[in-house]
Amino acid sequence: MAKVFIVYYSSTGNTEKMAEFVAEGARKSGAEVAVRKVQEAAIEDLEIADAVILGSPTYYGHSAGKMRNFIDKSVVLHGRLEGKVGGAFSSSHNIGGGNETAVRDLLDALLVHGMIIQGASNGDHYGPVSLGIPDRRVENQCRQLGERVARLAERTASEE
Amino acid sequence: MAKVFIVYYSSTGNTEKMAEFVAEGARKSGAEVAVRKVQEAAIEDLEIADAVILGSPTYYGHSAGKMRNFIDKSVVLHGRLEGKVGGAFSSSHNIGGGNETAVRDLLDALLVHGMIIQGASNGDHYGPVSLGIPDRRVENQCRQLGERVARLAERTASEE
Amino acid sequence: MAKVFIVYYSSTGNTEKMAEFVAEGARKSGAEVAVRKVQEAAIEDLEIADAVILGSPTYYGHSAGKMRNFIDKSVVLHGRLEGKVGGAFSSSHNIGGGNETAVRDLLDALLVHGMIIQGASNGDHYGPVSLGIPDRRVENQCRQLGERVARLAERTASEE
Amino acid sequence: MAKVFIVYYSSTGNTEKMAEFVAEGARKSGAEVAVRKVQEAAIEDLEIADAVILGSPTYYGHSAGKMRNFIDKSVVLHGRLEGKVGGAFSSSHNIGGGNETAVRDLLDALLVHGMIIQGASNGDHYGPVSLGIPDRRVENQCRQLGERVARLAERTASEE
Repeated sequence: MAKVFIVYYSSTGNTEKMAEFVAEGARKSGAEVAVRKVQEAAIEDLEIADAVILGSPTYYGHSAGKMRNFIDKSVVLHGRLEGKVGGAFSSSHNIGGGNETAVRDLLDALLVHGMIIQGASNGDHYGPVSLGIPDRRVENQCRQLGERVARLAERTASEE
Repeated sequence: MAKVFIVYYSSTGNTEKMAEFVAEGARKSGAEVAVRKVQEAAIEDLEIADAVILGSPTYYGHSAGKMRNFIDKSVVLHGRLEGKVGGAFSSSHNIGGGNETAVRDLLDALLVHGMIIQGASNGDHYGPVSLGIPDRRVENQCRQLGERVARLAERTASEE
Repeated sequence: MAKVFIVYYSSTGNTEKMAEFVAEGARKSGAEVAVRKVQEAAIEDLEIADAVILGSPTYYGHSAGKMRNFIDKSVVLHGRLEGKVGGAFSSSHNIGGGNETAVRDLLDALLVHGMIIQGASNGDHYGPVSLGIPDRRVENQCRQLGERVARLAERTASEE
Repeated sequence: MAKVFIVYYSSTGNTEKMAEFVAEGARKSGAEVAVRKVQEAAIEDLEIADAVILGSPTYYGHSAGKMRNFIDKSVVLHGRLEGKVGGAFSSSHNIGGGNETAVRDLLDALLVHGMIIQGASNGDHYGPVSLGIPDRRVENQCRQLGERVARLAERTASEE
C-alpha cells in the first residue's frame, strides 16, 4: 500500500478543493493518503511517503511563496527523496494566467529532488489546472492525478 | 510608423485567425503590418521589421517544428535583431494543454535574439492562447497584443 | 535619469555580489540606482522605479521562497507596474543546476506585471547566471544587464 | 531486459558524442539499446521501446526544429507511449545559453505523451547539459542518465 502525501497552500479554498479530489483519486487506487496544509506540514513527512503531490494557487506565474518556502526547507532531505513519485496541481484565475508555468515550477522542484513524475496524454498534461472554482472537468483531472501517482508509487515502491 | 512582421504556422486555421486579429490590433495602432505563413516568410524580413510576432499551434507543449525550423534558420541574423520588439501567441486543444509553454518557447527565441518583450497584466500574461477556434476572448487578447507590440515598437524605434 | 531598483535575496553572499555588479552597470549608464535586500525592500518602491531587477539564488530550480513572498505581496500594485522595465539574475551551484529556470521564474513574474524585458543575444540570454562565487565572466554579464536595463528604462520612461 | 531507444540530432558532433555516452550507461545497466540520428529514426520504433531518450543541440533556447518535427510526427502514436520512461539531454555553447530550457522542452514532449521521467538530485537535474565538446563531467552525467533511465524502464516494464 503506497503512502501518498499531499501538501498544498490555499488562500480562497480552490486549491484545497483540488487537494481533496486528488486525495480521493489516490485513495480509490488503494493508497494511504495524508493531506496537509503547507503551514502544518512537516518536512520529515516527505521522507516517510512513497509519493508527494504539491498544490498551490498560481501567483505571478508560479507557485506561492509559502509553498516555495516549504520546498526550500526540504533541502535538509536532499538526496533522500530520490526515486519517490511526485505530482503537482494549481488553481488560477484565467486561461493563459500562468497556471502551467506554476505546475511546472512545482514539478521542477520534484525533479531536482531526483523524483519521478508522469505526464498525462489526455487532459492537463503537466498536472491539473483550475480556472477559479474547480468544476467537473477539474475534479476529473484531479482524481486521475491521484490515481496515476498512487499506481506509479505502488509499482515503484514494491520494487525496492 | 513601426513595421510589424507577423509570422505564423497554422494547420487547422485557428492560429491563422489569431494572426489576423493580431494584425488588426497592430494596424489600429498605426503600424505597417505584414502577415506571412512561415512557409512563405523570408528570414531577411525579420531584419527590416521593427517588431516580430510569432504564432504557432501547440504541439507537444511547444511550438511546431515548422516554426522552430524558421527560428533555427534565423541564426544568420544573430545579433542584428537586438533591441527589436517581439511577441507570441498559440492555439491548442485544451486548458493545461501546453499552450503557455508553447508561447514561452517562442518568447525564449526572441529573448535569445536580444529582443524586447512585454507581458500583459490582464488576460493572457505571456501572450494570447486559444483553446480551439478563437472566440471573442481570444480575439480581444490578440488585438491587444498587436496594439501593445506596435506601440512599444513605435516608442523604441523612434528613439534610435 | 532612470530610476533602477534592484531587489535581491542572498544567503551566501554570491547573489549580493551579483547585485552590486548589476548596480555598477546601471549607474555607469547614468541611472539612479537603489539596491535592497528583499527583507528590507518596500513594495511601494516598485512603483517609484522606472525599472526593477530581481536577483535570487537558485533553490530547487526556481527563485527562493523569500523572493516569491515579496513578489506575491506586490499584488497590491497589480496593473501599476505595466510598462516598466525589468530584469533578473541568479546564482547556483552547478551547470544544469536550475539557474536558467530560476531566472525565467523571476522574468515570468515581471511579465505578469505587464513589464518589459529584454534578452541578450550574447552571453547569458535570459539573465546572468553564476555558478558559485561570481567570476569575471559573471561580473561582465551583470554589468551588461545593469546597462541594458538602465538604457531601456531611460528610453521608455522619457517617452511617457 | 529493457529496450532503450535514443534519438538525437547533431550538427557538430557534440550531441552525438553525448548520445553515445548515454547509450553506454544504459547498456551497462543491462538494457538493449538502439541509437538513431533523428533523420533515420522511425516513429514506430518509439512504440517498441520501453524507454525513449531524446538529445538535441540548444537552438534559440530550445531543441532543434529537426527534433521537434520528429516529435510532431509522433502524434500518430498519441496515447500509446503512456507509461513508458523518458529522458533528455542537450549541448549548447555557453552557460546560461538556453540549455536547461532546451532539455525541459524535450521533457515536456515526453510528459505530453504521458511518459515517466526522473530528475537527478545531483549534477544536471533535468538532464545532461554540455557546453561545447562534452568533457569528463558531461560524460559522467550522460552515463548516469543512461543508467537511471534503463533501471527505471526495467522496473516499470517488468511490472506490466
